[in-house]
Amino acid sequence: MKIAILGHGTVGSGVSKIIQNRQGDLVSNSLEIKYIYVRPNKVAENPLFTADYDQILNDDEVEVVVEVMGGLEPAKTMIIQALSHGKNVVTANKAVVARNIVEFNQVANQNNARFYFESAVGGGIPWIINLERALRIDQIDSIHGIFNGTSNYILDVMTKTGASFADVLKEAQDLGYAEADPSADIDGYDIENKLCISVDIAYNTFVQPGDELLKFGIRNITDQDIQYFKDQGWVVKLIGRSFRKDNRFSFVVEPTLYSPGEIEAGIHNNYNYVGLRGNTIGKLSFNGQGAGELPTAHALVQDILDLAAHTSHLYREFDQPLTLDNSLKLKNYVVRTSADISTYLAGYEFTKDGNYYHIDQIDTAKMHHIVAEIDRRNIDVFLACISRHRTRV
Amino acid sequence: MKIAILGHGTVGSGVSKIIQNRQGDLVSNSLEIKYIYVRPNKVAENPLFTADYDQILNDDEVEVVVEVMGGLEPAKTMIIQALSHGKNVVTANKAVVARNIVEFNQVANQNNARFYFESAVGGGIPWIINLERALRIDQIDSIHGIFNGTSNYILDVMTKTGASFADVLKEAQDLGYAEADPSADIDGYDIENKLCISVDIAYNTFVQPGDELLKFGIRNITDQDIQYFKDQGWVVKLIGRSFRKDNRFSFVVEPTLYSPGEIEAGIHNNYNYVGLRGNTIGKLSFNGQGAGELPTAHALVQDILDLAAHTSHLYREFDQPLTLDNSLKLKNYVVRTSADISTYLAGYEFTKDGNYYHIDQIDTAKMHHIVAEIDRRNIDVFLACISRHRTRV
Repeated sequence: MKIAILGHGTVGSGVSKIIQNRQGDLVSNSLEIKYIYVRPNKVAENPLFTADYDQILNDDEVEVVVEVMGGLEPAKTMIIQALSHGKNVVTANKAVVARNIVEFNQVANQNNARFYFESAVGGGIPWIINLERALRIDQIDSIHGIFNGTSNYILDVMTKTGASFADVLKEAQDLGYAEADPSADIDGYDIENKLCISVDIAYNTFVQPGDELLKFGIRNITDQDIQYFKDQGWVVKLIGRSFRKDNRFSFVVEPTLYSPGEIEAGIHNNYNYVGLRGNTIGKLSFNGQGAGELPTAHALVQDILDLAAHTSHLYREFDQPLTLDNSLKLKNYVVRTSADISTYLAGYEFTKDGNYYHIDQIDTAKMHHIVAEIDRRNIDVFLACISRHRTRV
Repeated sequence: MKIAILGHGTVGSGVSKIIQNRQGDLVSNSLEIKYIYVRPNKVAENPLFTADYDQILNDDEVEVVVEVMGGLEPAKTMIIQALSHGKNVVTANKAVVARNIVEFNQVANQNNARFYFESAVGGGIPWIINLERALRIDQIDSIHGIFNGTSNYILDVMTKTGASFADVLKEAQDLGYAEADPSADIDGYDIENKLCISVDIAYNTFVQPGDELLKFGIRNITDQDIQYFKDQGWVVKLIGRSFRKDNRFSFVVEPTLYSPGEIEAGIHNNYNYVGLRGNTIGKLSFNGQGAGELPTAHALVQDILDLAAHTSHLYREFDQPLTLDNSLKLKNYVVRTSADISTYLAGYEFTKDGNYYHIDQIDTAKMHHIVAEIDRRNIDVFLACISRHRTRV
């Protein structure tokens, strides 16, 4: 099966390596990279390189287009073009999938092509395939996890060393874990994309990334916060989670506090952790490399092998109308701020410990609304959800 | 697709429930249970019940035989008969699979039938399918996990409550988690079966359960041991693990000590945890329900759906000759015994703390050999491997 790769950064190189090394049992001679689409100034470097996308689109031998350029455009247009030419598309691009999953799916169907995106969520973790397989049998009513390795790395190093957020972010950037503009990783946008895709599949609906989806990242966390949580017996993780009840669902990205002995507290470095709950399979979760050249490339090649083996993925219309409702469950929160937020908390049980408010049984929408108010007044604020109810000491 | 179920215990009933409820997306009207094979005295209870296996074997409409009787015979004979009649077989029976995987595979191939056993390892966890998928691309050189929920439940309750082994075992038996004869769960035989099957697939070899595979269970553990480990900052788990290097592999079932903050320490109750390491995917692990009516039935139905969808599982000959070698790696161990074992430990660094010996950098084969010697002398003994190297305090 002949393949064109769009983009030759880290992940694209990984795909080339895996296909060319042919170590595994099924990566046989039947897979061949015919083109690698690059910028015009690069074309001379490698006989496979081309900057002429029409050449790829019009080559009937090319059965699979692997999109690993990232970004919204021209990725979206090029994916649509490939599908319109009846070519299967495999992508690692979570941002473009989260926004266009319905359209990609429709164009693929109209042209008898397949659109697969295992590597877009959870990197090397076979999350999408297993979510889809569970859905062959189960209703899935809950998705949660550590969907972003960079933020997990930052929080883990801060916890282990006591270093400041700025210093650890700088280190993560030097290691190549974090981008020069770290916003996608530390403000929750990357997790939002991945949770949108997961929720779309799990609930057979379409949730667009956007401001109505609650996100609170780790930009404001301090080493004092980490130490305070540690003193209380907690480790903090940046979590995405969604829960469905009937035709309503919650969706939130927020720092969450775990006790050692909870599984999330054992997810270190830049590992990802993603889980679901189904009506017969129960709780099922996955831990693995959420990014990186070879793990992400591994997931892309899995999609290619499924195409080669004619293994169909779950078909979804993404057409179930559901209502976003972040007041479905009451949780306990800790909010650190130098503002006096007592008036906001009228009617809720809370205690104050220095600048740390411990608030009981408040819904996520209300909690984020209060914190957004404080933030709007340019006062320092950080929030974290408590994973389990604990009796306050 | 018409199905015959052999046995109507807990798991068999679960399969009936899932197929008859048809909640999920792909469990469609195309699946139908035509027969349930039961003892002659039960036949009158349900129109699907039959005690006549020839009726099933000779009914060309039956495409899948689901074996959930358990035990070695008549399960083995009946599986072979079904495959010989060209029927696909799906089974949850780890004991019969571990011993006969090569023969079942051969008979299936000769008769153009499929033999699937997802539910035999890890219960509801989609372990086999993901191990096989990873192997399409990767070399896998390491398998490890908490493969037995009953022993994990016993250790977890002992850790949380301080209760004695005998009391918690009794409770597990009352809850139906443990059998009247608990040996398979507490002495490591169940884990041995599951690790054999995993290793067979991972390394494309055939490892028979037997005495040369090192197993040390939790029968001898005391509440004092649990407290001692807790005081040292450890939680104990019963682990199966195997590691391959070139044409040699290790294979051991043994109690292992984890610090809170290691992921294994976060696996509670009767959950299972299984993991692999591959050359491009890296470390990948799964956590979920390792037993129980619906999770196990879910895994069986996944196999049936793969048959219905013509999704092929990985083909293995199980013919790689590998040598068992449990001296491949040096580990640190804790051994509790009232015997004086100093002479056995000549040449190794160790310290003694009451009845607890802390031994550094000893290979697994040697350590188990010493403990077997003590056991043979009818002196109390318990051993636990330390998961990570720590500097002794």
